[in-house]
Amino acid sequence: MFDKSTYVARRRTLCEKMAKTAPEGKRGIALFIGNVEAPAQYKDNCYKWRQDSSWLYYFGLDDPRYAAVIDFDSGEQTIFADDVEIGDIIWMGPQPTVQSKAESVGIYSSAPYKAVDAVVAKAISQGRRIHFLPPSRYYNTIKLSMLTRCTYDEVNIVAEGDGHHASEELVKAVISMRLVKEQCEIDAIDDACALGYEMHSIGRDSIVPGIIEQEIVGKMEAVTISKGWGVSFPTILTQHGETLHNHLHDKIIEPGKLMVIDAGAENNLHYASDFTRTYPTSGKFTQKQRDVYQIVCDCNNHAFSLVKPGISYRDVHLATAKRMLEGLSALGLVHGDLDEMVAQGIAGLFQPHGLGHNMGMDVHDMEDLGENLVGYDPDQKRSDQLGLGSLRMARKLVPGNVITDEPGIYFIPALIETWKSEGKGKDFVNFSRLESYYDFGGIRLEDDVLVTPNGARRTGPKRLPITPDEVEAAMAK
Amino acid sequence: MFDKSTYVARRRTLCEKMAKTAPEGKRGIALFIGNVEAPAQYKDNCYKWRQDSSWLYYFGLDDPRYAAVIDFDSGEQTIFADDVEIGDIIWMGPQPTVQSKAESVGIYSSAPYKAVDAVVAKAISQGRRIHFLPPSRYYNTIKLSMLTRCTYDEVNIVAEGDGHHASEELVKAVISMRLVKEQCEIDAIDDACALGYEMHSIGRDSIVPGIIEQEIVGKMEAVTISKGWGVSFPTILTQHGETLHNHLHDKIIEPGKLMVIDAGAENNLHYASDFTRTYPTSGKFTQKQRDVYQIVCDCNNHAFSLVKPGISYRDVHLATAKRMLEGLSALGLVHGDLDEMVAQGIAGLFQPHGLGHNMGMDVHDMEDLGENLVGYDPDQKRSDQLGLGSLRMARKLVPGNVITDEPGIYFIPALIETWKSEGKGKDFVNFSRLESYYDFGGIRLEDDVLVTPNGARRTGPKRLPITPDEVEAAMAK
Repeated sequence: MFDKSTYVARRRTLCEKMAKTAPEGKRGIALFIGNVEAPAQYKDNCYKWRQDSSWLYYFGLDDPRYAAVIDFDSGEQTIFADDVEIGDIIWMGPQPTVQSKAESVGIYSSAPYKAVDAVVAKAISQGRRIHFLPPSRYYNTIKLSMLTRCTYDEVNIVAEGDGHHASEELVKAVISMRLVKEQCEIDAIDDACALGYEMHSIGRDSIVPGIIEQEIVGKMEAVTISKGWGVSFPTILTQHGETLHNHLHDKIIEPGKLMVIDAGAENNLHYASDFTRTYPTSGKFTQKQRDVYQIVCDCNNHAFSLVKPGISYRDVHLATAKRMLEGLSALGLVHGDLDEMVAQGIAGLFQPHGLGHNMGMDVHDMEDLGENLVGYDPDQKRSDQLGLGSLRMARKLVPGNVITDEPGIYFIPALIETWKSEGKGKDFVNFSRLESYYDFGGIRLEDDVLVTPNGARRTGPKRLPITPDEVEAAMAK
Repeated sequence: MFDKSTYVARRRTLCEKMAKTAPEGKRGIALFIGNVEAPAQYKDNCYKWRQDSSWLYYFGLDDPRYAAVIDFDSGEQTIFADDVEIGDIIWMGPQPTVQSKAESVGIYSSAPYKAVDAVVAKAISQGRRIHFLPPSRYYNTIKLSMLTRCTYDEVNIVAEGDGHHASEELVKAVISMRLVKEQCEIDAIDDACALGYEMHSIGRDSIVPGIIEQEIVGKMEAVTISKGWGVSFPTILTQHGETLHNHLHDKIIEPGKLMVIDAGAENNLHYASDFTRTYPTSGKFTQKQRDVYQIVCDCNNHAFSLVKPGISYRDVHLATAKRMLEGLSALGLVHGDLDEMVAQGIAGLFQPHGLGHNMGMDVHDMEDLGENLVGYDPDQKRSDQLGLGSLRMARKLVPGNVITDEPGIYFIPALIETWKSEGKGKDFVNFSRLESYYDFGGIRLEDDVLVTPNGARRTGPKRLPITPDEVEAAMAK
């Protein structure tokens, strides 16, 4: 947890932002529902406890079954949770009181968890606005639906003004704050990246043909559990990198393949890292692998070189797409005018995902608040092109943004065949030449980047080996 | 996954059992809702995928967003799930069709996920009984509530006959089957116990004063991830064993303390192990520690010696409580007639939990179906005494039951002070003598036990070192 003053200041800023959304007396209340434990098998056997990120941001308290209300008219702030009883002490040990916990984050009013029901009911009866964030978990869906008398679907719809839905005003205020990391958050991300570095180094050093992928995953995740909260997302470790979110680890490692490792650590303060590297399972790239790898590596470096305040990440994505098409042209896989190909979205056939996303307490930061509200400026419209359409962060960059830089090239037979049969990209793509890449797999290279006042820096103490030579040297050790 | 014939046979048995609950034409349908992914941070960043255990038992298919209906009148069985589209293939890779997956477990009718809504709606409109199990997760609560038109609370209430609630007839039929393990399940539990043995051995060997508890947890969990699904429940590893469910691992290991490690592995077939050992952090017990430890060890062995078909586990719990009080008498911590103390529940002051629970795919097997229906025979009533009242498995044992044997002695200052101030146990407990144990902590020793036709055997390839001498010898290596 950070200093008490951090949370007090954040809530003060939030109140100031919300004060601008309506005249005094019409601002209403914000209702925050912290997480409860998430059952894995049954209600008392749960996944590892993880608090809601927006809750952590404003209230810091890392315990289940908490709620809070901020009254934007009176300024009053209240924490709702239950003190433990003797029966609980046997199972959970002696605990500080809810009141003392509330005070530790600068809130001096507390009440039992159940009491939040009456507070919300009263505000509804007075016709006051109830602001809440869309729920990130199913329990919160149920709780919000019961408290605010919305349907399950309604609580997930973010819109402005009164009514049965999540509050766009509150969502926008929260996003505007969490998008720009404070120094204490940057330190926490650097720390998570140090864990991520160690995690990836162990992963790379464990690649040996003949073992099962799962064995490497266990060694990598041990680092995150021993020194942090755990993984910041389910580890991707696969010889089928062309499948973007492949969470199976049941394959035997074969020589001569490419292995994509996309993995991150969450530290004990609940900040994420998110790195991807791609390794030749035999320790050396074939020439064919090296040629494609070098393009992805160039794209990663090119994107990083462009990052600075004022440029939109959409433009960085497009500039990187152009660089990628230039490289693919040199290999004879596409041909034609580069700008024309960028405009037609040809890069999406090879990289059907965006260049990167915001990162913070969530690895896709604030995705529960709505991808477009988080990642797009009001004047930006999301593309419907494959690839660019998946870009989660398009905004004009400002100092304090933390983003991922993760270009990739994949040869996805089903996708290529679909384009070919539909005649899509037929003026640019050398489909016949692509057939020899159907068993190639995929390559992705990802760093995490902080936008600084004058440019950018990669987060974490060191950059993982990334050039083909660096990778081969690291694997030879 | 097991053989197709395993799932076919299980569903056939289930249908036969349900046929006895109502005349033909009045039996209704069973609605099974498999799990969906469980969000950790937001809807697309999920905890590690885990299917619902009862779903796995009857349908085997280990993928999210599946449902099934069994018609107990017509015998018809249908799987509901969605085939992947090209957009999904990019992210998830090519997938077998739902129809082919259904056929792999012996079901030849499949339909899209959404189609289950109409099937249930039609059955309701025809006044047919809708049997379902109480939901183990919040998503299933929402889905069942929407499909069956019950409230959130109602879907969790298990009762017989028609109406808005979970089906006691179905729950009882499922429990009667899952309580008695098949040979393939016993093999899977032995396998999970082999993982648990390795996990615990690494934990024991990593205990060194000066490091943080969390570091050991990472090493232990690495085994479960590298070779199995992961932990079968959140690891308890604490120098405050007197707090029964302590999931914090943030303490530095101090010399001279007792460390309780209660941890288990779930193998790739999703069966659990659950072992507890208690270690002297310095490698050697003090005499005071050894004296209490020996009592717990004797209780564990005594319980095991009594396990055989025909005895109720409630009686084993009580016999073990008597043995514990005998040992505590010898230490001068209690005094008086042993049977009288057992009857008065004096052992609950030291062991405020039950001797054990059923174990299978869930570490507390089927706890989502209701603790009393799972663990108590129809003629058994649950006690309200501390300790005995927490006993999760009281039933008369039959071959194929898999249970834990986990006595413990804890010195919980808040509990002791409560009893003292209320005059509870005043004729038996030497409260003044107990004060010197307020910083003692707790000891628990747990094995997993299979009831065999003639007695019992501990599951897994080897028993973890358990006598004080064995433990000290293992730690000296």
